Amino acid sequence: VTIEIWPVEGLPEIREGDDLPAILAEPLRALGVLDGDVVAITQKIVSKSEGRVVPDEGEGRSAWVDRETRRIVARRGELIIAETRHGFVCANAGVDASNVESGFVSLLPVDPDASSEAIRASLADRLGLSRLGVVMTDTFGRPWRNGVVNVAIGCAGMPAIVDLRGQADHHGRELEVTIVALADEVAAASGLAMGKSARVPAALVRGIDVGTAPPGHAADLIRTPEEDLFREGTIDP
Amino acid sequence: VTIEIWPVEGLPEIREGDDLPAILAEPLRALGVLDGDVVAITQKIVSKSEGRVVPDEGEGRSAWVDRETRRIVARRGELIIAETRHGFVCANAGVDASNVESGFVSLLPVDPDASSEAIRASLADRLGLSRLGVVMTDTFGRPWRNGVVNVAIGCAGMPAIVDLRGQADHHGRELEVTIVALADEVAAASGLAMGKSARVPAALVRGIDVGTAPPGHAADLIRTPEEDLFREGTIDP
Repeated sequence: VTIEIWPVEGLPEIREGDDLPAILAEPLRALGVLDGDVVAITQKIVSKSEGRVVPDEGEGRSAWVDRETRRIVARRGELIIAETRHGFVCANAGVDASNVESGFVSLLPVDPDASSEAIRASLADRLGLSRLGVVMTDTFGRPWRNGVVNVAIGCAGMPAIVDLRGQADHHGRELEVTIVALADEVAAASGLAMGKSARVPAALVRGIDVGTAPPGHAADLIRTPEEDLFREGTIDP
Repeated sequence: VTIEIWPVEGLPEIREGDDLPAILAEPLRALGVLDGDVVAITQKIVSKSEGRVVPDEGEGRSAWVDRETRRIVARRGELIIAETRHGFVCANAGVDASNVESGFVSLLPVDPDASSEAIRASLADRLGLSRLGVVMTDTFGRPWRNGVVNVAIGCAGMPAIVDLRGQADHHGRELEVTIVALADEVAAASGLAMGKSARVPAALVRGIDVGTAPPGHAADLIRTPEEDLFREGTIDP
């Protein structure tokens, strides 16, 4: 497998109501998009197109963080690590002031998986493709590790996780690392091509081996409370 | 920036004492390795070459997990999330039974950054390159998210983190997402090319934009206790 990732350059500033697939189709065609490719798109341009960029109402970001938060996971000073209504755990419940106009903040899309599927269906139709993946990315921090990486908050047309349980390694032992967060790997890889100033809010990714796994959604990446070792009371004293 | 990632295929089974740079040089040359490229290598083959595959001594893995653990972060049943002596937080302190012979387990290298630097220096010398990056990868789970992704546990010849603080977005506002875990993005991307059964334990990555950041180490990715919101007592009740 050779992986190739191209930045999708030259996109206009996205505004509420813009038809993202219509805007993305021509640059993707120019890059030679093929069946089996994956298009990675930042959350920010989806939020802009969906009207999820909102005035900070003079209250700053905190009122919006409160509204977007389902559960506070940790807090230090002004930094809140919150579970969003989707179930993602991230800084400030995904409320972000960068790459939007002064006086505004961006919120995560209401349903990133549904947005990803709508973008996928429209793009596939416009481009005449039968198999196309879409991964919506955002930059998340991580416990214990410095720096942010791109992760998947939306996924359509490809599996978000690939379950290798039961497969053997080349010594014939069952693989221990059995569930791979494929959409997160694609998201992180796309971050290498996008650059960090958000002038490149999309990338075309080729060569992803999904094996026989069926398409899934980013919701598959969310750990259930029962499997979550990092909820209240589970830290070993 | 276009990113390209090639699997390094056809490597022999690695054994203690093997000279990894000698083994990797010819396949990398055949792939056309260039100045500025990054070589991603799994922890497993480094551990094998360094004699860090050890008998489980009939005790199973747990005795080794105890020895490799500096601090237990969380525990549920047989699963231990532990901080290793290096400062990485991962399942079972990196002690792993997959892709090693029955009756053995693999431990993380004693000093993954030093190993990465030694491999980088030898590879650059053998290949006649002045700039070469090396990222040593391992597969880590994450809190709150299902599935594993490749992360960097060793880094040499390229920055592990890239600090964009002070740079402006295209609205002139200072970027909020300011420290990017570049080596982790490279590791995750390399995972797309390596496949999951560890038959491909290395990948060649081209097109990484390090900007003006100086080379760093995976130790730069480890959050200090002061910055760590997920130590004992910091979970919000």
